[in-house]
Amino acid sequence: MSDLIITNALVVTADDAGTVFPDGAVAVSGGRIERIGPAAQIGLDAREVIDARGMMLMPGLINMHCHAGDSLFRGLVEDLPLEPWLRTVWKAEGAVLDRETMRLGATLGFAELLLGGVTTTMDMFWYPDQTVAAARDVGMRVATGGIFFDGRGMDRVDGSARLAEAAAFFEAFGAADDVFAGCLPHGAYTVGPETLVAAKAAADANGGFFSTHAAETRAERLEIEERYGRPVIRHLDALGLLDARTVLAHCIWLDDEEIAILARTGATVVHNPMSNLKLASGFARVPDMLAAGVRVTLGTDGAISGNDLDLWMALRLAATLHRAATLDARAVTTGQALAMVTSNAAAALGAADRLGSLAPGKLADMILVDLRRPHAVPLFDPATHIVFSTAKSDVRHVFVGGRQVVRDGALVLHDLAVTLDQVAALTPRIAASVQP
Amino acid sequence: MSDLIITNALVVTADDAGTVFPDGAVAVSGGRIERIGPAAQIGLDAREVIDARGMMLMPGLINMHCHAGDSLFRGLVEDLPLEPWLRTVWKAEGAVLDRETMRLGATLGFAELLLGGVTTTMDMFWYPDQTVAAARDVGMRVATGGIFFDGRGMDRVDGSARLAEAAAFFEAFGAADDVFAGCLPHGAYTVGPETLVAAKAAADANGGFFSTHAAETRAERLEIEERYGRPVIRHLDALGLLDARTVLAHCIWLDDEEIAILARTGATVVHNPMSNLKLASGFARVPDMLAAGVRVTLGTDGAISGNDLDLWMALRLAATLHRAATLDARAVTTGQALAMVTSNAAAALGAADRLGSLAPGKLADMILVDLRRPHAVPLFDPATHIVFSTAKSDVRHVFVGGRQVVRDGALVLHDLAVTLDQVAALTPRIAASVQP
Repeated sequence: MSDLIITNALVVTADDAGTVFPDGAVAVSGGRIERIGPAAQIGLDAREVIDARGMMLMPGLINMHCHAGDSLFRGLVEDLPLEPWLRTVWKAEGAVLDRETMRLGATLGFAELLLGGVTTTMDMFWYPDQTVAAARDVGMRVATGGIFFDGRGMDRVDGSARLAEAAAFFEAFGAADDVFAGCLPHGAYTVGPETLVAAKAAADANGGFFSTHAAETRAERLEIEERYGRPVIRHLDALGLLDARTVLAHCIWLDDEEIAILARTGATVVHNPMSNLKLASGFARVPDMLAAGVRVTLGTDGAISGNDLDLWMALRLAATLHRAATLDARAVTTGQALAMVTSNAAAALGAADRLGSLAPGKLADMILVDLRRPHAVPLFDPATHIVFSTAKSDVRHVFVGGRQVVRDGALVLHDLAVTLDQVAALTPRIAASVQP
Repeated sequence: MSDLIITNALVVTADDAGTVFPDGAVAVSGGRIERIGPAAQIGLDAREVIDARGMMLMPGLINMHCHAGDSLFRGLVEDLPLEPWLRTVWKAEGAVLDRETMRLGATLGFAELLLGGVTTTMDMFWYPDQTVAAARDVGMRVATGGIFFDGRGMDRVDGSARLAEAAAFFEAFGAADDVFAGCLPHGAYTVGPETLVAAKAAADANGGFFSTHAAETRAERLEIEERYGRPVIRHLDALGLLDARTVLAHCIWLDDEEIAILARTGATVVHNPMSNLKLASGFARVPDMLAAGVRVTLGTDGAISGNDLDLWMALRLAATLHRAATLDARAVTTGQALAMVTSNAAAALGAADRLGSLAPGKLADMILVDLRRPHAVPLFDPATHIVFSTAKSDVRHVFVGGRQVVRDGALVLHDLAVTLDQVAALTPRIAASVQP
């Protein structure tokens, strides 16, 4: 007898072959997928059976770049160029963030992500142990770890203490099966070469990932060139930081040689289209990266550059934006886009054996998407529906490791109303933080 | 005593001054707004009182370009360049469309729009009387009228009969207060100069609008230049077709002189960002048009180029896309974007006195947006929330002329399940229509 069977769904496995079971089912035991296939073959022998008629079952999405705690500052600073914008945001962060408010912001962000069908998210923010606590409050997987930043951070910790903090994070969470632990230096313009190298060494020593911002703006590219005599990706490559465990957010301002370097080293790129549009950063060369064989994934970035955390929006933009930028309707195909939030992301986390598709033996991180919506009919090809029509509000039920964490559009483990009220109570203080 | 009072809402009037009532109310009688202001001033003296605590009250959005009937072909033809894509879509339309299926498709599209808070939509499609019938089924306002197309259309009507059809439309619906009647030739590449001029004359004679596709693709620009020795906007201007009652969809491939012509004549541009991205048409020069004083509005276009009808998505893209295209974070401001779906659109319909903002004497076309969502807190500036965070699924209640047509996310006047089932039943025939 299985723990759970979900039956009568349109099952989209998101495997490499694009396998779909129009009237399908999945059996789950011990947090993993036991069997998957036509409903008639899977049967009903389980402690819990969910009839998913009118719904699509697919893997939970994987968000590869976020700063969930920044949800507290959503919409606070708008219509400004990047530099004064960032200065004002940092002023607010400095005034408002502590361990408690950080956890509140992260909980708000993770609630939004999980309700929208994201079951694993990478997060780069101060107080990473609080990030883990917030993710556990709602029941999602998180990839995070030690933050590196030269000088004093918003957490009042000095740059020299970062390596010890990162080690403590690996010690605390390195073995947890709901945490992917790594090292996350902010960027090559805020973290010096020695610290970048030390962070990568710590990540490697602990089998963790290494993630940083890279080539987000033209100003950053020029600054790194001026300081180090080479553009960002060549700088990171020369430091020996690029390999299959490296995850680089943005990668907009690249030349052809840098794209070739990304392909050769196996580093992962996180494309954050909404953030790149809103902050006027530019258009990442996604079609060129795909053609070169670079592994591309997707991120929401934080809600201060979003202003929400909508990975479905990122997915749709990834599949459409580059068509207009290149005037080529096949610049990014539906299948390429879907892989960015499923299999490519799983591979980037070193978890291709556990995540990224629905298959026997994999973790039961799954979502049920409502198809009884006007934008869901007619439905000819499920992948097309996922990439071009599905909205985060279509997600009705979410399972992480077989445990239901969203039921009928509401969190199971956490009372969202409490978080909304706490954030509302904090709002006047946040608004005051940026007053002159 | 008023007919209806909605109270305790965050009221966003969307008037030119940006007036907001944080704890506001509106009183409605005879389908129009009687009074609007702080809740305490408006009181509770009405036959129906709605307590809108935790919600935002704002004008219904106005969608200025759509082909709702094409919702039947959503996702049917994908990942193809424009020309083979259009040939395949037209094959499907020719095989499937008749008066009944057209109305079914329009009902599906209008249901999606109205549930998403669009209270008025312009629609260009075959069988415009069926378009009106479908809009009335769900309870929304529609701007439509005679279609012009050289040769035989999908409705089996010959080009020579179009003028009589347009006249019949004005006769039937010209006086209706839920219909804006006009003439809608398909485009300068499918409709010859004489017919364009005749259509505009018919529109003018009946006080109606004139709307057509213009400058959507580079190929269209080249074709018009080759045929008429001038690009599209200059061609339309030379024919005397451009004035304040003219509405041009897309306007991507324009030179500076054509932008100046649009500004001088007062013609309205409908920007359709999602369609332009997906079909690889390019980026409209929206910041240049705004700087020149062109009236810019927004459209969803049809679901075959979308793949949904999400005007909030169009709004967010209008405010962000051009920042990346110009590397200028102020390329389109929040206020400019909001005007595109409210006051600019109302002016384009010749209805600035009735629609586009919440003010005494205007029609009570209003929506209530749920603010108890994780992406809606904190909320510092309502316009920022509307443009950058609100999703169509946040719309809970919709009123057209004071009548409630959406209640708690469900249509009041129409059973959506029936339409979904009818479309599902038609789906195999639609799929078969494009088989070789």
